[in-house]
Amino acid sequence: MADNRKFWTDLGMDVEKHDLLCEALPEAFGDVYLSQENRPEKMDYFNMVVADIHGIRPQELVEFQKNGGKVVGTFCIHVPDEIVFALGAINTGLCSGSQFWVPGGEKVLPSATCPLIKASLGARFERTCPFFRLADLFVGETTCDGKKKAWEVLSKDAPMYIFDLPQMKRDKDREFFKDEVRRYIKRIEELTGNTLTKEGLKDAIVLINNKRRALQRLNAFRTLENVPISGRDVLLITQIAFYDDPARFTQKLNELCDELDERVKNGVSVYPKDAPRVMLSGTPLSIPNWKLHQIIETQGAAVVGEEMCTGSRYFEKLVDESGETIEEMIDALTDRYMSGINCACYTPNDERIEDIIRLSKYFKADGVIDVNLKFCQIYDTEGIEVERRLKEENIPVLGIETDYSDNDAEQLKTRIGAFLELLKDA
Amino acid sequence: MADNRKFWTDLGMDVEKHDLLCEALPEAFGDVYLSQENRPEKMDYFNMVVADIHGIRPQELVEFQKNGGKVVGTFCIHVPDEIVFALGAINTGLCSGSQFWVPGGEKVLPSATCPLIKASLGARFERTCPFFRLADLFVGETTCDGKKKAWEVLSKDAPMYIFDLPQMKRDKDREFFKDEVRRYIKRIEELTGNTLTKEGLKDAIVLINNKRRALQRLNAFRTLENVPISGRDVLLITQIAFYDDPARFTQKLNELCDELDERVKNGVSVYPKDAPRVMLSGTPLSIPNWKLHQIIETQGAAVVGEEMCTGSRYFEKLVDESGETIEEMIDALTDRYMSGINCACYTPNDERIEDIIRLSKYFKADGVIDVNLKFCQIYDTEGIEVERRLKEENIPVLGIETDYSDNDAEQLKTRIGAFLELLKDA
Repeated sequence: MADNRKFWTDLGMDVEKHDLLCEALPEAFGDVYLSQENRPEKMDYFNMVVADIHGIRPQELVEFQKNGGKVVGTFCIHVPDEIVFALGAINTGLCSGSQFWVPGGEKVLPSATCPLIKASLGARFERTCPFFRLADLFVGETTCDGKKKAWEVLSKDAPMYIFDLPQMKRDKDREFFKDEVRRYIKRIEELTGNTLTKEGLKDAIVLINNKRRALQRLNAFRTLENVPISGRDVLLITQIAFYDDPARFTQKLNELCDELDERVKNGVSVYPKDAPRVMLSGTPLSIPNWKLHQIIETQGAAVVGEEMCTGSRYFEKLVDESGETIEEMIDALTDRYMSGINCACYTPNDERIEDIIRLSKYFKADGVIDVNLKFCQIYDTEGIEVERRLKEENIPVLGIETDYSDNDAEQLKTRIGAFLELLKDA
Repeated sequence: MADNRKFWTDLGMDVEKHDLLCEALPEAFGDVYLSQENRPEKMDYFNMVVADIHGIRPQELVEFQKNGGKVVGTFCIHVPDEIVFALGAINTGLCSGSQFWVPGGEKVLPSATCPLIKASLGARFERTCPFFRLADLFVGETTCDGKKKAWEVLSKDAPMYIFDLPQMKRDKDREFFKDEVRRYIKRIEELTGNTLTKEGLKDAIVLINNKRRALQRLNAFRTLENVPISGRDVLLITQIAFYDDPARFTQKLNELCDELDERVKNGVSVYPKDAPRVMLSGTPLSIPNWKLHQIIETQGAAVVGEEMCTGSRYFEKLVDESGETIEEMIDALTDRYMSGINCACYTPNDERIEDIIRLSKYFKADGVIDVNLKFCQIYDTEGIEVERRLKEENIPVLGIETDYSDNDAEQLKTRIGAFLELLKDA
């Protein structure tokens, strides 16, 4: 920890303020994670990463920078990691998942902004997130009004690049997206001084696909009757996927999956028999936002899937690996990153509801909880139709809205508890 | 009125519910408008239009339809009226400015949606707006998250077309917009069965420009020391511009302006000497939203300008009339409708703040009130920078957030009153 404090000071962080977060996090992690019984042993790696999430990985990134490497921070799964890795840089997620950062965001943004965006800007402006200090470039996107306008604020304090997304999915939008990928390549070429090669891009596509394959393998365990790993643990692993070195992450995750294979052979489940199975849909849960999984799983139910950016939307689809030219690979990236992501930022977005129905069947969920981060207008509006359609399909559904505070914890426990009772009775 | 009731019934309206609006509107209009002293006589035309706004004009439109004409309803100043008129159809605004329609909107949209959008959908779904019954096509746009997702809901009940807007203003976005104009032409050609000609488009450009010129002429009176017409009256005229026949509107407005010329010669002002001069900036004020003008002007101040969609953003810039081919005219429309509108939906949008500063000087405003309709994230976020920049320019500024209810009337009166005192003392 002493090492970390010097490291953080050198990064220009407000170390005293950051101490408050460092004090709170171990307790939260202990409550949610270490209290679980019968966790897989190979969770140790992920426990270790989280325990020192503002130390180990940021130090690696700074070492990389000392050798001339560049680090790119991104906020959204629409921005292709492959470009960054293909050009010899490293892509990282950014702090956005704790109430700790929200008041800082509210100093520069309207309070009627979603907590994820407020937390992001708070983490930067209050200098309490190492990733937000060290990145050489921050890549925002035009997914939603809140983010689009927040980047204007952030750009006054940080080096920003905006990846512009289309709002529809027609042929012309596809061409628009491909052009944005080309522009992004140019920008990262400028940043790194490197030139994109087809070999480099192909390797990066395989690198990131392998991470997705490992996450798919992990999530397939959740479809079983005996689920060998908790929803909380899967969420944690998915959250770490945004930060960790992709090759190492993939290896560690596959080691965990090997252990889970053994558990399956032995019929091990982390849940009581007949625990209700719940899938979540909606807005992302970024680290350390474990609130809903904790509420659901401590009431004896299982979270078996997430139709979320921190869930299936992140890993379910691969980039086609057969491209031989850069243009063919840009086409494959567009298939994956535009056509393949059914985000509420698109209109229309009926495919997302089909995804929810399909995934709830894949994960054998007894019901769906559709989650909206407060003031996220796009998912909030879509939620009305999600609920209507799921009811039509006879899939029990509960729509909830929440933020990062604990103010609504009791109310959520009550509402979710009643929903779980309903699932048990069904 | 008996005639109107039959007419409304034939349109499929909920006449009993609509009666409640009909009962409330005359009193509101009386309070805000007829109570004013020393109004120009030529306001009579506009009084008459408003007094029967759900009767006279809708009846004209239905007559037009009986002869095979088509009516297109639009929600946003980004969608070029010229296309519709050039193809022999009529463009009309749609109900969106009263709390009366909000509860109906809240049945189909999240309550955390801006009142303008909720009122629009409420007016349609509850069948209490003739324009929302009679239009042959409704044209939404992708300006903001709230609208973009609301059109998905509306499209389940009404024939919709979406005009897709870019989110930036680069060369590629300009090409994107031009392509959207071409798509829109095709759609209106389909609707009307007519084919766009360069003569037709040129005539429509002149027709709409003449309306803008008359509004520019009207607004120039507000720059004078003796202002011969109230801000309330100018707002009303601007609101009517969205509904009325453009040629007739232009003629009637020019007649009013002739009267105002006389007033200027005679040094007539509708305001007390030394009344503080206020410009509004921000989100639109659609009919019958007269709340802020009423609060400001009944406290002895003058509203001298609006940097709003229901204000300068609507009429300040003309479409270049020199185009000789349809493509040249599409280029001119793109100049006007994309490049020429500094809406908070674009990123970055620094030009809007330059507009506010420039217009506040043009209108010789003593201060600016920056208005945000609750839950409008784009203007809300931009408002923080608007306030910062105006303070930097030593322009007094008050940021307020409001909706269509009267709940905050007293609080607004107090805050605005204090701001006006500050302007008087300056």
